[in-house]
Amino acid sequence: MARLLITSGPTRQYLDPVRYITNCSSGLMGAALAQAALELGHQVTILTGPVTICYPDAASVIEVLSTDEMLSHAVAQFPDFDGVIGAAAPCDYKPSQVSQEKLVKDGSGINLELFETPDVIATLGQSKLDHQWVVGFALETDDHRFRATTKAQQKCCDLIVLNGVTALNSTMTSIHILTQQGECVLRAHGTKQDVSHEILSVVQRRLIDFDGEEGP
Amino acid sequence: MARLLITSGPTRQYLDPVRYITNCSSGLMGAALAQAALELGHQVTILTGPVTICYPDAASVIEVLSTDEMLSHAVAQFPDFDGVIGAAAPCDYKPSQVSQEKLVKDGSGINLELFETPDVIATLGQSKLDHQWVVGFALETDDHRFRATTKAQQKCCDLIVLNGVTALNSTMTSIHILTQQGECVLRAHGTKQDVSHEILSVVQRRLIDFDGEEGP
Repeated sequence: MARLLITSGPTRQYLDPVRYITNCSSGLMGAALAQAALELGHQVTILTGPVTICYPDAASVIEVLSTDEMLSHAVAQFPDFDGVIGAAAPCDYKPSQVSQEKLVKDGSGINLELFETPDVIATLGQSKLDHQWVVGFALETDDHRFRATTKAQQKCCDLIVLNGVTALNSTMTSIHILTQQGECVLRAHGTKQDVSHEILSVVQRRLIDFDGEEGP
Repeated sequence: MARLLITSGPTRQYLDPVRYITNCSSGLMGAALAQAALELGHQVTILTGPVTICYPDAASVIEVLSTDEMLSHAVAQFPDFDGVIGAAAPCDYKPSQVSQEKLVKDGSGINLELFETPDVIATLGQSKLDHQWVVGFALETDDHRFRATTKAQQKCCDLIVLNGVTALNSTMTSIHILTQQGECVLRAHGTKQDVSHEILSVVQRRLIDFDGEEGP
Protein backbone atom coordinates (compact mmCIF):
# COMPACT_ATOMS: atom_id res chain seq x y z
CA MET A 1 0.00 0.00 0.00
CA ALA A 2 1.36 3.37 -1.02
CA ARG A 3 0.22 6.85 -0.02
CA LEU A 4 -0.71 8.85 -3.15
CA LEU A 5 -1.33 12.55 -3.46
CA ILE A 6 -3.32 13.45 -6.58
CA THR A 7 -3.74 17.07 -7.65
CA SER A 8 -6.91 17.64 -9.65
CA GLY A 9 -9.11 20.21 -11.32
CA PRO A 10 -8.40 23.83 -12.28
CA THR A 11 -7.43 26.72 -10.06
CA ARG A 12 -8.64 30.31 -10.31
CA GLN A 13 -6.69 33.55 -10.34
CA TYR A 14 -8.95 36.51 -9.60
CA LEU A 15 -8.65 39.94 -11.26
CA ASP A 16 -11.24 41.42 -8.88
CA PRO A 17 -13.95 39.94 -6.61
CA VAL A 18 -15.94 38.71 -9.64
CA ARG A 19 -13.67 37.90 -12.58
CA TYR A 20 -10.94 35.30 -12.76
CA ILE A 21 -8.69 33.41 -15.15
CA THR A 22 -9.14 29.65 -15.23
CA ASN A 23 -9.48 26.69 -17.61
CA CYS A 24 -12.16 24.07 -18.12
CA SER A 25 -10.42 21.23 -16.27
CA SER A 26 -13.25 19.26 -14.67
CA GLY A 27 -11.45 17.05 -12.16
CA LEU A 28 -12.66 13.92 -14.03
CA MET A 29 -9.13 12.67 -14.65
CA GLY A 30 -8.15 13.20 -11.01
CA ALA A 31 -11.28 11.36 -9.87
CA ALA A 32 -10.61 8.46 -12.25
CA LEU A 33 -6.95 8.20 -11.15
CA ALA A 34 -8.04 8.26 -7.50
CA GLN A 35 -10.54 5.46 -8.10
CA ALA A 36 -7.95 3.35 -9.95
CA ALA A 37 -5.42 3.89 -7.14
CA LEU A 38 -7.99 3.02 -4.45
CA GLU A 39 -8.84 -0.21 -6.31
CA LEU A 40 -5.15 -1.15 -6.14
CA GLY A 41 -5.35 -0.75 -2.36
CA HIS A 42 -3.54 2.58 -2.07
CA GLN A 43 -4.36 5.44 0.29
CA VAL A 44 -5.38 8.52 -1.69
CA THR A 45 -5.61 12.24 -0.94
CA ILE A 46 -6.93 14.57 -3.64
CA LEU A 47 -5.86 18.21 -3.64
CA THR A 48 -8.43 19.89 -5.84
CA GLY A 49 -9.41 23.26 -7.23
CA PRO A 50 -13.12 24.14 -7.64
CA VAL A 51 -14.99 21.38 -9.49
CA THR A 52 -18.60 20.22 -9.63
CA ILE A 53 -17.89 16.48 -9.90
CA CYS A 54 -17.83 14.09 -6.93
CA TYR A 55 -14.61 12.36 -5.86
CA PRO A 56 -14.57 8.77 -4.54
CA ASP A 57 -15.79 8.62 -0.93
CA ALA A 58 -12.74 6.61 0.11
CA ALA A 59 -10.35 9.42 -0.85
CA SER A 60 -9.51 12.37 1.40
CA VAL A 61 -10.18 15.67 -0.35
CA ILE A 62 -8.52 19.05 0.26
CA GLU A 63 -10.15 21.97 -1.56
CA VAL A 64 -8.24 25.04 -2.72
CA LEU A 65 -8.99 28.01 -4.99
CA SER A 66 -5.75 29.51 -6.32
CA THR A 67 -2.48 28.06 -7.56
CA ASP A 68 -0.60 29.50 -4.57
CA GLU A 69 -3.00 27.71 -2.23
CA MET A 70 -2.57 24.46 -4.17
CA LEU A 71 1.19 24.85 -3.97
CA SER A 72 1.31 25.58 -0.25
CA HIS A 73 -0.94 22.62 0.59
CA ALA A 74 1.05 20.37 -1.77
CA VAL A 75 4.38 21.36 -0.19
CA ALA A 76 2.99 20.92 3.33
CA GLN A 77 1.40 17.52 2.57
CA PHE A 78 4.01 15.93 0.31
CA PRO A 79 6.36 14.67 3.07
CA ASP A 80 3.53 12.36 4.20
CA PHE A 81 3.21 10.72 0.77
CA ASP A 82 5.16 8.24 -1.32
CA GLY A 83 4.30 9.92 -4.59
CA VAL A 84 2.21 12.52 -6.34
CA ILE A 85 0.29 12.46 -9.61
CA GLY A 86 -0.22 15.99 -10.92
CA ALA A 87 -3.50 15.75 -12.82
CA ALA A 88 -4.55 19.30 -11.89
CA ALA A 89 -4.44 22.12 -14.42
CA PRO A 90 -3.39 24.97 -12.13
CA CYS A 91 -3.87 28.42 -13.64
CA ASP A 92 -0.32 29.43 -14.49
CA TYR A 93 -0.80 33.17 -14.88
CA LYS A 94 -1.98 35.57 -12.19
CA PRO A 95 -2.62 39.32 -12.30
CA SER A 96 0.18 41.38 -10.77
CA GLN A 97 -2.53 43.29 -8.90
CA VAL A 98 -5.94 42.12 -7.71
CA SER A 99 -8.60 44.81 -7.36
CA GLN A 100 -10.53 44.68 -4.07
CA GLU A 101 -13.55 46.26 -5.77
CA LYS A 102 -15.24 45.05 -8.94
CA LEU A 103 -13.53 46.78 -11.87
CA VAL A 104 -15.93 49.28 -13.43
CA LYS A 105 -16.23 49.43 -17.20
CA ASP A 106 -15.42 52.90 -18.46
CA GLY A 107 -15.21 52.19 -22.18
CA SER A 108 -11.42 52.12 -22.33
CA GLY A 109 -10.58 48.51 -21.47
CA ILE A 110 -7.73 47.55 -19.17
CA ASN A 111 -4.15 46.48 -19.43
CA LEU A 112 -3.51 43.41 -17.34
CA GLU A 113 -0.01 42.46 -16.30
CA LEU A 114 0.16 38.72 -15.68
CA PHE A 115 2.89 36.99 -13.71
CA GLU A 116 3.58 33.27 -13.99
CA THR A 117 2.46 31.29 -10.97
CA PRO A 118 4.88 28.86 -9.33
CA ASP A 119 4.76 25.35 -10.80
CA VAL A 120 3.25 22.95 -8.26
CA ILE A 121 4.64 19.70 -9.68
CA ALA A 122 8.08 21.16 -10.47
CA THR A 123 8.31 22.39 -6.86
CA LEU A 124 7.52 18.92 -5.54
CA GLY A 125 9.81 17.27 -8.09
CA GLN A 126 12.76 19.47 -7.15
CA SER A 127 12.34 18.74 -3.43
CA LYS A 128 11.43 15.04 -3.53
CA LEU A 129 13.33 12.57 -1.40
CA ASP A 130 14.89 9.38 -2.78
CA HIS A 131 11.91 7.19 -1.90
CA GLN A 132 9.39 9.63 -3.40
CA TRP A 133 8.21 9.81 -7.01
CA VAL A 134 6.44 12.41 -9.11
CA VAL A 135 4.21 11.92 -12.15
CA GLY A 136 3.44 15.11 -14.05
CA PHE A 137 0.91 15.89 -16.77
CA ALA A 138 1.69 18.04 -19.79
CA LEU A 139 -1.18 19.53 -21.76
CA GLU A 140 -0.11 20.65 -25.18
CA THR A 141 -2.13 21.90 -28.12
CA ASP A 142 0.26 20.12 -30.49
CA ASP A 143 1.97 16.79 -30.02
CA HIS A 144 5.06 18.41 -28.51
CA ARG A 145 6.88 15.36 -27.29
CA PHE A 146 10.11 17.20 -27.10
CA ARG A 147 8.60 19.88 -24.90
CA ALA A 148 6.95 17.25 -22.70
CA THR A 149 10.30 15.51 -22.21
CA THR A 150 11.92 18.84 -21.39
CA LYS A 151 9.15 19.48 -18.90
CA ALA A 152 9.74 16.05 -17.33
CA GLN A 153 13.39 16.94 -16.87
CA GLN A 154 12.79 20.48 -15.62
CA LYS A 155 10.11 19.37 -13.21
CA CYS A 156 12.13 16.34 -12.06
CA CYS A 157 9.23 14.06 -12.91
CA ASP A 158 9.85 10.32 -12.98
CA LEU A 159 7.15 10.04 -15.62
CA ILE A 160 5.14 12.58 -17.56
CA VAL A 161 1.70 12.00 -19.04
CA LEU A 162 1.23 13.93 -22.25
CA ASN A 163 -2.34 14.72 -23.22
CA GLY A 164 -4.16 17.12 -25.50
CA VAL A 165 -6.49 20.03 -24.95
CA THR A 166 -9.48 17.91 -26.06
CA ALA A 167 -9.10 15.94 -22.81
CA LEU A 168 -10.15 18.98 -20.75
CA ASN A 169 -13.71 18.56 -19.47
CA SER A 170 -14.14 15.43 -21.61
CA THR A 171 -14.96 11.89 -20.47
CA MET A 172 -12.40 10.58 -23.00
CA THR A 173 -8.65 11.08 -23.29
CA SER A 174 -5.62 10.05 -25.34
CA ILE A 175 -2.29 9.92 -23.57
CA HIS A 176 1.36 8.98 -23.93
CA ILE A 177 3.54 8.34 -20.88
CA LEU A 178 7.13 9.43 -21.35
CA THR A 179 10.18 8.88 -19.16
CA GLN A 180 12.68 11.65 -18.46
CA GLN A 181 14.75 10.17 -21.28
CA GLY A 182 11.87 10.59 -23.73
CA GLU A 183 11.04 6.89 -23.94
CA CYS A 184 7.34 6.25 -24.51
CA VAL A 185 6.23 3.58 -22.03
CA LEU A 186 2.48 3.70 -22.66
CA ARG A 187 0.04 4.94 -25.24
CA ALA A 188 -3.61 4.73 -24.29
CA HIS A 189 -6.93 6.03 -25.56
CA GLY A 190 -10.38 5.60 -24.07
CA THR A 191 -12.52 6.71 -21.17
CA LYS A 192 -10.66 8.44 -18.37
CA GLN A 193 -11.58 5.47 -16.16
CA ASP A 194 -9.95 2.94 -18.51
CA VAL A 195 -6.92 5.12 -19.22
CA SER A 196 -6.46 5.74 -15.48
CA HIS A 197 -6.23 2.01 -14.83
CA GLU A 198 -3.51 1.78 -17.48
CA ILE A 199 -1.62 4.75 -16.03
CA LEU A 200 -1.82 3.27 -12.53
CA SER A 201 -0.48 -0.06 -13.85
CA VAL A 202 2.58 1.74 -15.16
CA VAL A 203 2.99 3.70 -11.93
CA GLN A 204 2.62 0.51 -9.90
CA ARG A 205 5.20 -1.38 -11.95
CA ARG A 206 7.79 1.36 -12.43
CA LEU A 207 7.49 3.45 -9.26
CA ILE A 208 5.66 1.62 -6.45
CA ASP A 209 6.77 -2.02 -6.80
CA PHE A 210 10.22 -1.01 -8.00
CA ASP A 211 12.87 -2.08 -5.46
CA GLY A 212 15.22 0.85 -5.98
CA GLU A 213 18.17 -1.17 -7.19
CA GLU A 214 18.07 0.04 -10.76
CA GLY A 215 16.56 2.95 -12.66
CA PRO A 216 12.76 2.71 -12.93
CA MET B 1 -49.07 34.20 -21.78
CA ALA B 2 -45.90 36.14 -22.56
CA ARG B 3 -42.77 35.00 -24.39
CA LEU B 4 -39.75 35.51 -22.11
CA LEU B 5 -36.10 35.37 -23.01
CA ILE B 6 -33.84 34.79 -19.98
CA THR B 7 -30.07 35.12 -20.25
CA SER B 8 -28.24 33.00 -17.69
CA GLY B 9 -24.85 31.82 -16.50
CA PRO B 10 -21.37 33.14 -17.22
CA THR B 11 -19.60 33.46 -20.55
CA ARG B 12 -15.94 32.75 -21.27
CA GLN B 13 -13.36 34.84 -23.09
CA TYR B 14 -10.39 32.75 -24.11
CA LEU B 15 -6.76 33.95 -24.05
CA ASP B 16 -5.59 30.81 -25.86
CA PRO B 17 -7.09 27.32 -26.42
CA VAL B 18 -6.84 26.51 -22.69
CA ARG B 19 -7.16 29.64 -20.54
CA TYR B 20 -10.10 31.99 -20.28
CA ILE B 21 -11.55 34.79 -18.20
CA THR B 22 -14.91 34.08 -16.59
CA ASN B 23 -16.80 34.40 -13.31
CA CYS B 24 -18.50 31.90 -11.01
CA SER B 25 -22.07 32.55 -12.13
CA SER B 26 -23.80 29.17 -11.89
CA GLY B 27 -27.03 29.71 -13.83
CA LEU B 28 -29.05 29.01 -10.66
CA MET B 29 -30.78 32.41 -10.78
CA GLY B 30 -31.65 31.99 -14.47
CA ALA B 31 -33.02 28.50 -13.77
CA ALA B 32 -35.11 29.77 -10.83
CA LEU B 33 -36.48 32.71 -12.87
CA ALA B 34 -37.34 30.33 -15.73
CA GLN B 35 -39.17 28.00 -13.36
CA ALA B 36 -41.12 30.90 -11.81
CA ALA B 37 -42.06 32.22 -15.27
CA LEU B 38 -43.15 28.77 -16.46
CA GLU B 39 -45.35 28.40 -13.37
CA LEU B 40 -47.09 31.66 -14.36
CA GLY B 41 -47.86 30.09 -17.74
CA HIS B 42 -45.26 31.93 -19.81
CA GLN B 43 -43.19 30.53 -22.66
CA VAL B 44 -39.50 30.61 -21.73
CA THR B 45 -36.26 30.44 -23.70
CA ILE B 46 -32.95 30.45 -21.80
CA LEU B 47 -29.83 31.76 -23.49
CA THR B 48 -27.03 30.36 -21.37
CA GLY B 49 -23.27 30.26 -21.08
CA PRO B 50 -21.52 27.08 -19.87
CA VAL B 51 -23.10 25.80 -16.64
CA THR B 52 -23.33 22.42 -14.92
CA ILE B 53 -26.86 22.86 -13.52
CA CYS B 54 -30.01 21.58 -15.24
CA TYR B 55 -32.63 23.99 -16.56
CA PRO B 56 -36.38 23.24 -16.40
CA ASP B 57 -37.40 20.72 -19.10
CA ALA B 58 -40.24 22.99 -20.24
CA ALA B 59 -37.85 25.80 -21.20
CA SER B 60 -36.03 25.98 -24.53
CA VAL B 61 -32.28 26.31 -24.01
CA ILE B 62 -29.71 27.90 -26.34
CA GLU B 63 -26.08 27.34 -25.31
CA VAL B 64 -23.29 29.80 -26.06
CA LEU B 65 -19.69 30.23 -24.94
CA SER B 66 -18.58 33.85 -25.39
CA THR B 67 -20.22 37.21 -24.81
CA ASP B 68 -20.24 37.95 -28.54
CA GLU B 69 -22.12 34.70 -29.16
CA MET B 70 -24.60 35.53 -26.39
CA LEU B 71 -25.11 38.97 -27.94
CA SER B 72 -25.62 37.74 -31.48
CA HIS B 73 -28.14 35.09 -30.39
CA ALA B 74 -29.92 37.61 -28.14
CA VAL B 75 -30.21 40.18 -30.94
CA ALA B 76 -31.41 37.52 -33.40
CA GLN B 77 -33.97 36.06 -30.96
CA PHE B 78 -35.31 39.17 -29.25
CA PRO B 79 -37.85 40.19 -31.95
CA ASP B 80 -39.74 36.94 -31.17
CA PHE B 81 -40.08 37.79 -27.46
CA ASP B 82 -42.15 40.17 -25.34
CA GLY B 83 -39.38 40.75 -22.85
CA VAL B 84 -35.98 39.72 -21.62
CA ILE B 85 -34.59 39.17 -18.13
CA GLY B 86 -30.81 39.50 -18.13
CA ALA B 87 -29.72 37.17 -15.33
CA ALA B 88 -26.50 36.16 -17.10
CA ALA B 89 -23.11 37.45 -15.98
CA PRO B 90 -21.43 37.82 -19.37
CA CYS B 91 -17.68 38.24 -19.19
CA ASP B 92 -17.23 41.92 -19.97
CA TYR B 93 -13.55 41.97 -20.85
CA LYS B 94 -11.94 40.07 -23.70
CA PRO B 95 -8.30 39.86 -24.82
CA SER B 96 -7.49 42.05 -27.80
CA GLN B 97 -5.72 39.03 -29.28
CA VAL B 98 -6.45 35.33 -28.81
CA SER B 99 -3.51 32.97 -29.28
CA GLN B 100 -4.26 29.95 -31.50
CA GLU B 101 -1.61 27.95 -29.62
CA LYS B 102 -1.36 27.44 -25.87
CA LEU B 103 0.79 30.27 -24.52
CA VAL B 104 4.11 28.86 -23.35
CA LYS B 105 5.52 29.99 -20.00
CA ASP B 106 8.95 31.52 -20.48
CA GLY B 107 9.42 33.05 -17.04
CA SER B 108 8.60 36.60 -18.06
CA GLY B 109 4.81 36.73 -17.72
CA ILE B 110 2.57 38.43 -20.28
CA ASN B 111 0.88 41.75 -20.78
CA LEU B 112 -2.75 41.26 -21.65
CA GLU B 113 -4.70 44.05 -23.32
CA LEU B 114 -8.38 43.63 -22.52
CA PHE B 115 -11.19 45.27 -24.46
CA GLU B 116 -14.69 45.69 -23.06
CA THR B 117 -17.22 43.32 -24.60
CA PRO B 118 -20.51 44.72 -25.92
CA ASP B 119 -23.27 44.87 -23.29
CA VAL B 120 -25.95 42.31 -24.14
CA ILE B 121 -28.80 43.84 -22.15
CA ALA B 122 -27.95 47.44 -23.11
CA THR B 123 -28.00 46.41 -26.79
CA LEU B 124 -31.45 44.85 -26.39
CA GLY B 125 -32.68 47.79 -24.30
CA GLN B 126 -31.58 50.35 -26.86
CA SER B 127 -33.34 48.51 -29.71
CA LYS B 128 -36.51 47.37 -27.97
CA LEU B 129 -39.90 48.12 -29.53
CA ASP B 130 -42.75 49.79 -27.64
CA HIS B 131 -44.40 46.52 -26.60
CA GLN B 132 -41.12 44.99 -25.41
CA TRP B 133 -39.55 45.26 -21.97
CA VAL B 134 -36.12 44.66 -20.52
CA VAL B 135 -35.14 43.70 -16.97
CA GLY B 136 -31.42 43.98 -16.24
CA PHE B 137 -29.30 42.73 -13.38
CA ALA B 138 -26.52 44.76 -11.78
CA LEU B 139 -23.90 43.02 -9.70
CA GLU B 140 -22.01 45.37 -7.45
CA THR B 141 -19.51 44.70 -4.70
CA ASP B 142 -20.92 47.68 -2.77
CA ASP B 143 -24.53 48.78 -2.47
CA HIS B 144 -24.16 51.17 -5.37
CA ARG B 145 -27.77 52.13 -5.89
CA PHE B 146 -26.82 55.23 -7.77
CA ARG B 147 -24.73 53.24 -10.20
CA ALA B 148 -27.49 50.66 -10.63
CA THR B 149 -29.98 53.41 -11.50
CA THR B 150 -27.52 54.89 -13.96
CA LYS B 151 -27.09 51.45 -15.48
CA ALA B 152 -30.88 51.09 -15.78
CA GLN B 153 -31.00 54.36 -17.68
CA GLN B 154 -27.99 53.65 -19.88
CA LYS B 155 -29.19 50.18 -20.71
CA CYS B 156 -32.80 51.35 -21.25
CA CYS B 157 -34.00 48.79 -18.72
CA ASP B 158 -37.57 49.06 -17.46
CA LEU B 159 -36.41 47.55 -14.19
CA ILE B 160 -33.02 46.64 -12.79
CA VAL B 161 -32.35 43.97 -10.19
CA LEU B 162 -29.45 44.93 -7.95
CA ASN B 163 -27.65 42.07 -6.27
CA GLY B 164 -24.32 41.45 -4.57
CA VAL B 165 -21.30 39.35 -5.38
CA THR B 166 -22.27 36.83 -2.68
CA ALA B 167 -25.18 35.79 -4.92
CA LEU B 168 -22.79 34.30 -7.48
CA ASN B 169 -22.82 30.50 -7.29
CA SER B 170 -24.95 30.62 -4.13
CA THR B 171 -28.40 29.15 -3.56
CA MET B 172 -29.38 32.35 -1.67
CA THR B 173 -29.62 35.94 -2.81
CA SER B 174 -30.57 39.44 -1.63
CA ILE B 175 -31.97 41.82 -4.21
CA HIS B 176 -33.52 45.25 -4.71
CA ILE B 177 -35.55 46.05 -7.80
CA LEU B 178 -35.17 49.65 -8.96
CA THR B 179 -37.02 51.56 -11.65
CA GLN B 180 -35.21 53.86 -14.10
CA GLN B 181 -36.16 56.69 -11.75
CA GLY B 182 -34.38 55.00 -8.85
CA GLU B 183 -37.56 53.99 -7.03
CA CYS B 184 -37.16 50.75 -5.11
CA VAL B 185 -40.17 48.55 -5.90
CA LEU B 186 -39.04 45.33 -4.22
CA ARG B 187 -36.56 44.15 -1.62
CA ALA B 188 -36.26 40.41 -1.21
CA HIS B 189 -33.97 37.94 0.49
CA GLY B 190 -34.07 34.17 0.44
CA THR B 191 -33.50 31.21 -1.81
CA LYS B 192 -33.18 32.01 -5.48
CA GLN B 193 -36.44 30.09 -6.01
CA ASP B 194 -38.38 32.26 -3.55
CA VAL B 195 -36.79 35.50 -4.71
CA SER B 196 -37.50 34.57 -8.35
CA HIS B 197 -41.20 34.22 -7.62
CA GLU B 198 -41.16 37.71 -6.09
CA ILE B 199 -39.27 39.15 -9.07
CA LEU B 200 -41.71 37.53 -11.51
CA SER B 201 -44.67 38.96 -9.54
CA VAL B 202 -43.24 42.46 -10.06
CA VAL B 203 -42.52 41.78 -13.74
CA GLN B 204 -46.04 40.39 -14.19
CA ARG B 205 -47.70 43.38 -12.53
CA ARG B 206 -45.58 46.17 -13.97
CA LEU B 207 -44.56 44.88 -17.41
CA ILE B 208 -46.75 41.98 -18.58
CA ASP B 209 -50.26 42.84 -17.29
CA PHE B 210 -49.67 46.56 -17.70
CA ASP B 211 -52.01 47.96 -20.40
CA GLY B 212 -49.63 50.56 -21.80
CA GLU B 213 -51.67 53.63 -20.84
CA GLU B 214 -49.30 54.94 -18.22
CA GLY B 215 -45.67 54.48 -17.31
CA PRO B 216 -44.94 51.09 -15.71
